[in-house]
Amino acid sequence: MSSNGYTNGHSTRKINFGAGPAQLPVEVLETIQNEFLDFNGSGSNVMELSHRSSAFAKIIQEAERDIREILTIPDSYAVLFLQGGATAQFSAVALNFLNLKPSKTADYLVTGYWSEKAAKEAEKFGKINWVVPKSSKYQGNCIQTKPKYRLINALNEIGVPAEDTWKLSEEPSYFYYCANETIDGVEMENIPTVVPKDVPIVCDMSSNFLTRPFDVTKYAVIFASAQKNFGASGLVLVILRKDLVENNTNKSIPIILDYKVQIANESMYNTPPTFSIYVANKMFAWTKAQGGLKALNQQSASKSSLVYETIDESNGFYVNSVEKNYRSRVNIPLRIVTNGTTNETLEALFLAEVVKSNMFELKGHRAVGGIRISLYNGITVKETEKLVNFMRTFQAKNNSV
Amino acid sequence: MSSNGYTNGHSTRKINFGAGPAQLPVEVLETIQNEFLDFNGSGSNVMELSHRSSAFAKIIQEAERDIREILTIPDSYAVLFLQGGATAQFSAVALNFLNLKPSKTADYLVTGYWSEKAAKEAEKFGKINWVVPKSSKYQGNCIQTKPKYRLINALNEIGVPAEDTWKLSEEPSYFYYCANETIDGVEMENIPTVVPKDVPIVCDMSSNFLTRPFDVTKYAVIFASAQKNFGASGLVLVILRKDLVENNTNKSIPIILDYKVQIANESMYNTPPTFSIYVANKMFAWTKAQGGLKALNQQSASKSSLVYETIDESNGFYVNSVEKNYRSRVNIPLRIVTNGTTNETLEALFLAEVVKSNMFELKGHRAVGGIRISLYNGITVKETEKLVNFMRTFQAKNNSV
Repeated sequence: MSSNGYTNGHSTRKINFGAGPAQLPVEVLETIQNEFLDFNGSGSNVMELSHRSSAFAKIIQEAERDIREILTIPDSYAVLFLQGGATAQFSAVALNFLNLKPSKTADYLVTGYWSEKAAKEAEKFGKINWVVPKSSKYQGNCIQTKPKYRLINALNEIGVPAEDTWKLSEEPSYFYYCANETIDGVEMENIPTVVPKDVPIVCDMSSNFLTRPFDVTKYAVIFASAQKNFGASGLVLVILRKDLVENNTNKSIPIILDYKVQIANESMYNTPPTFSIYVANKMFAWTKAQGGLKALNQQSASKSSLVYETIDESNGFYVNSVEKNYRSRVNIPLRIVTNGTTNETLEALFLAEVVKSNMFELKGHRAVGGIRISLYNGITVKETEKLVNFMRTFQAKNNSV
Repeated sequence: MSSNGYTNGHSTRKINFGAGPAQLPVEVLETIQNEFLDFNGSGSNVMELSHRSSAFAKIIQEAERDIREILTIPDSYAVLFLQGGATAQFSAVALNFLNLKPSKTADYLVTGYWSEKAAKEAEKFGKINWVVPKSSKYQGNCIQTKPKYRLINALNEIGVPAEDTWKLSEEPSYFYYCANETIDGVEMENIPTVVPKDVPIVCDMSSNFLTRPFDVTKYAVIFASAQKNFGASGLVLVILRKDLVENNTNKSIPIILDYKVQIANESMYNTPPTFSIYVANKMFAWTKAQGGLKALNQQSASKSSLVYETIDESNGFYVNSVEKNYRSRVNIPLRIVTNGTTNETLEALFLAEVVKSNMFELKGHRAVGGIRISLYNGITVKETEKLVNFMRTFQAKNNSV
């Protein structure tokens, strides 16, 4: 076993800094590989086991027990293992909860690409109030704006408008936001304080879930897709206050999006994504073994500090345009700037060179271009050090170009 | 490598006769296991690869190419790899197609548990005509009826009512049926002939997909969940006529259930279930290597004949109550009958003994009891022979009890 956790036999492994599906800890993959033809004496791979078998029941129950322990989730909350990704939850949240209050309105804080998608999906099913008006300066975060302009002329302008500028509804059914915008690189560390206590808060935590501690009881619904910090795509975890589903009067919810049905059937109204749940179970056990959220929070801070320090010490060669308070610790978009302008030739060279060092998936999202560094839980501090060493060397070689 | 395809190292493998998730060919599992830490030089497991990467694009494109070849799917049909199982398609079909005709009505042929679920789900979104009235004798198939009564006193009564008794609508938006009822053991080999040619036919083929050839062009929509005959749960394949989505006027379809969006985005509006698609790709390649549907059709016939012969030659010890024309080749429910009555003690003994021979998941569905033998593509003829040998020995030992 080498010091970075890779066994000698796996020297062909590469480091994946992509935004997801993300790299998993190699020791978790090795365990799954070892169990591949015979899981725990069952004589089968987990994907061959009936979802009603006692062997699989143990897997999903362990996964739920572990995530409840990791996040201190009270019994008044359900934990669901569902299909359709976070995108299915954009619809489910609206279908299940838009009519919680007579206003049949929900407040959406749109801070980037994904919360905008969620708001637009919800608009199919009811009245959505954009807390930060679409026309405001905030729009700078959104995908429509030309990223080049924004990144060079609007340095440090991307963030979240101050809470006192938000336009909240009188009596909304719920308040929605995204804790981390994967494409925009905007993360909200704290839960908004301006939302009245009796308004249920719904949060998409897909990309920063399990990277820092948070108080579950401050939320009504939390959801996170698995392929960033706890496994394989095809699975989304939903944590929600059970009492809320009692008040749902919508009789036209497609059954797989109906929270009441999913709670009553413990995520098994139909066959769940068993293999992805198995991987999640392994990842939750790994999370605990790492030292839980306290340790992963520390790792996340260390990794992102390494990258932001490299950016901030680059004298404007590497540029990230997010306000420091809202800099994401898991997704860091950046551009290479020379002579006051984005240098796409150098960015292309960067992407070509970094692959030669066995690091990949560093290309920025197709909608914004540039470079993006994602630092999910499967990335180690050592691997991040390797990347920042590359960044410094690359700058030294190319700064005068 | 032993004669049944298991390598010596895998002697702990057991034979899974369950209704799904189902057993996979061990050679497919071995390939996936070998690629687990480094798929095709990518330095990653497939579940770690970006769904936008060229490595994954190759996987999903190969899977589509192979299934198009296996089934001779014309270009006028889309092939989609979606989430949510067949259950999500119960909703999607209704949401996308109920309004194809001014009647906003669809005809549902309910032949068992799953087509009934589909009809009830569709009733949330429009007017559903039960082609065979709910109150008819056919109800014998449905889960509500006491199976004991049905199986002992109504031998050979379960099937599909004759087409000339069906009550079709004037101008339905579509006609829906299930090709194989997993719980009831009822399979329709042929497409209904009484449905007018201009009525789009929608078919749930989840459990007998890839076990026999069929003419895709006779259908408007075909869907099948992966965990029976082509892999892991969390994936449903949808084959549908592209022109149909053009006429859809429903603006309130949850986005993951919107066929138009899924076609436009080639199943990647959001992150698809990448690992399950990878397994499907392997299974489609395996299907071709077996000799395609011609060979699998033959295997399915051989396996099911072995079991039905054993039942029919048992002098009423083993009883299957489905009309011979509608006997399923993939799911065979049966009871053990002695002295004219179901013998639950012997059934329990059967289930306890069969496990000792490394065969499992033979318990009947919790809703009907008894025994069920599922013979999906991952089960070999040799394995089926082992089971029928056990059945004959068991009968010889216990017939006089």
